[in-house]
Amino acid sequence: MLNLYRRTVLGIAGLPGVEGVARRYGWRFGVGRFVAGETVAAARPALRALVDEGRATIVDVLGEYVRDEAAARAMAASVATTIATLADAGLPAVVSVKPTQLGLGIDPALALELASDLARAAEARGGRLCLDMEDHRFVDATLDLLAGVRAAGAPRASTVLQAYLHRTPDDLVALLAASPPGAEVRIVKGAYHEPAEVALTAMSEVRRAFLSACETAWRGGAKVNVATHDEGLIAEATAFARGAGLGQERYELQLLYGVKPALQRRLAAAGHPVRIYVPLGVDWYGYFSRRLAERPANVAVVLRGLFR
Amino acid sequence: MLNLYRRTVLGIAGLPGVEGVARRYGWRFGVGRFVAGETVAAARPALRALVDEGRATIVDVLGEYVRDEAAARAMAASVATTIATLADAGLPAVVSVKPTQLGLGIDPALALELASDLARAAEARGGRLCLDMEDHRFVDATLDLLAGVRAAGAPRASTVLQAYLHRTPDDLVALLAASPPGAEVRIVKGAYHEPAEVALTAMSEVRRAFLSACETAWRGGAKVNVATHDEGLIAEATAFARGAGLGQERYELQLLYGVKPALQRRLAAAGHPVRIYVPLGVDWYGYFSRRLAERPANVAVVLRGLFR
Repeated sequence: MLNLYRRTVLGIAGLPGVEGVARRYGWRFGVGRFVAGETVAAARPALRALVDEGRATIVDVLGEYVRDEAAARAMAASVATTIATLADAGLPAVVSVKPTQLGLGIDPALALELASDLARAAEARGGRLCLDMEDHRFVDATLDLLAGVRAAGAPRASTVLQAYLHRTPDDLVALLAASPPGAEVRIVKGAYHEPAEVALTAMSEVRRAFLSACETAWRGGAKVNVATHDEGLIAEATAFARGAGLGQERYELQLLYGVKPALQRRLAAAGHPVRIYVPLGVDWYGYFSRRLAERPANVAVVLRGLFR
Repeated sequence: MLNLYRRTVLGIAGLPGVEGVARRYGWRFGVGRFVAGETVAAARPALRALVDEGRATIVDVLGEYVRDEAAARAMAASVATTIATLADAGLPAVVSVKPTQLGLGIDPALALELASDLARAAEARGGRLCLDMEDHRFVDATLDLLAGVRAAGAPRASTVLQAYLHRTPDDLVALLAASPPGAEVRIVKGAYHEPAEVALTAMSEVRRAFLSACETAWRGGAKVNVATHDEGLIAEATAFARGAGLGQERYELQLLYGVKPALQRRLAAAGHPVRIYVPLGVDWYGYFSRRLAERPANVAVVLRGLFR
């Protein structure tokens, strides 16, 4: 049922004309619930409010796969501006990028150059760069990119492993072996439509794999970014961390801007380190469609926006 | 809603004539789903099957509050026979009794004499005695009884703390301080109808208190009997135990005979130490009514029995 719903929403989102209408009336549609602004300046009040309430932030400048070098350089310039603007405003200079936004799909050397510059800039301002993980075809290239970025003078750069991929336990062992103690690694369930040859399909198995990956990462000395809205998994992961006596330097809970805000506040109030993944930028259409597709409750936000 | 359902079922169970009919047709009504037999001999195949499948057992000889010494002595004799029969059959001589079955409500010295005899007999056969906890009026007397039984030569005797009682965190600290390392303590949510002055009423608070009690007991060196069918709590408690590196000598999961048998098997198959609380005896009517009252799904068992 959820799959049918998801396909329907993504199908509608892909119809000709729909994006144009959405872009025109976007903020009235409720986009602002999930995207903090089209520019870092516009997003600043939302970021400030989160930080003031005790939630850290990681900013994602939205964008898609780029097809040429000029687009990759333009995206990198936009992320560089974001890092500088955040740091100048006293906000965390912690940012996430999709490697294909920096040209990984067209020229790995270009992506390495751009990602290394951004990661060093972020670390120079007390922050860091996270390389988001895309579908399974980019896992090897992204892990190689991370190694290159770290070697290029940005040791705090990190990436993401997706629990549903069959290869993840092996990737995790290799990543831990190559990482300095306390290095960050984000664990997510994984949300692409992957074939059964590469990914687990049963949610109960994905949940077990998620928890197992967190525990392996902790045992391997990492700082785990526990990135899920699954309250059961958050409870189990934090129980393990308590049992192991792990302090705030060894884990943080990551949730998406606008998703389960009451849960976000409750976790922060309970003393957990919480970091909110905050998307911003003009390229919000794909991200916003996926938020509507993943959870029918999110459509209520849009309907409330339309009839207000 | 569940409260209304519970009161209705318990109300019907208390109507004149209902118990007589139930006792006459009991096993056809599905009593055998929750009570292993009217005698230890009758219960033996069920006990053997559990042990053969890798689940340990703790036997409860059903009975209610006794009003005179003769009834208390008769109950103690029945428990003593059960201990001997279990041990002779090579089954765990681990038993639970309600202290008021042994006269705690009429004469604490009598209860101490009888409970000490039983606890020593169980330990002599490699087992142990657990003093079940009843409503809040008996908590002090039960904790005193436990101290007396242990001092009378049965150091492995244990009891139960109910997470929903406001006094439990203090009781737990005192109990841990008075217990030898590795001593067992069973943690349950609590199931009596207690007033708000003595007990938490919100299930979310009871769940938090349950987990907190387990963690305090572990930190205090105890072996925790995690006694709940709440899969979320089981997952969190076992995650804490994994994080703390606690082995099988430091915890066991306890569940009731006939309740969530698939979960019981799954937990044992996952390598957790599991012990099933197995009631037996002729006094099954009150216990059986409470099982029906706590979960509508259990009534389906009775209906299937009637129409088969």
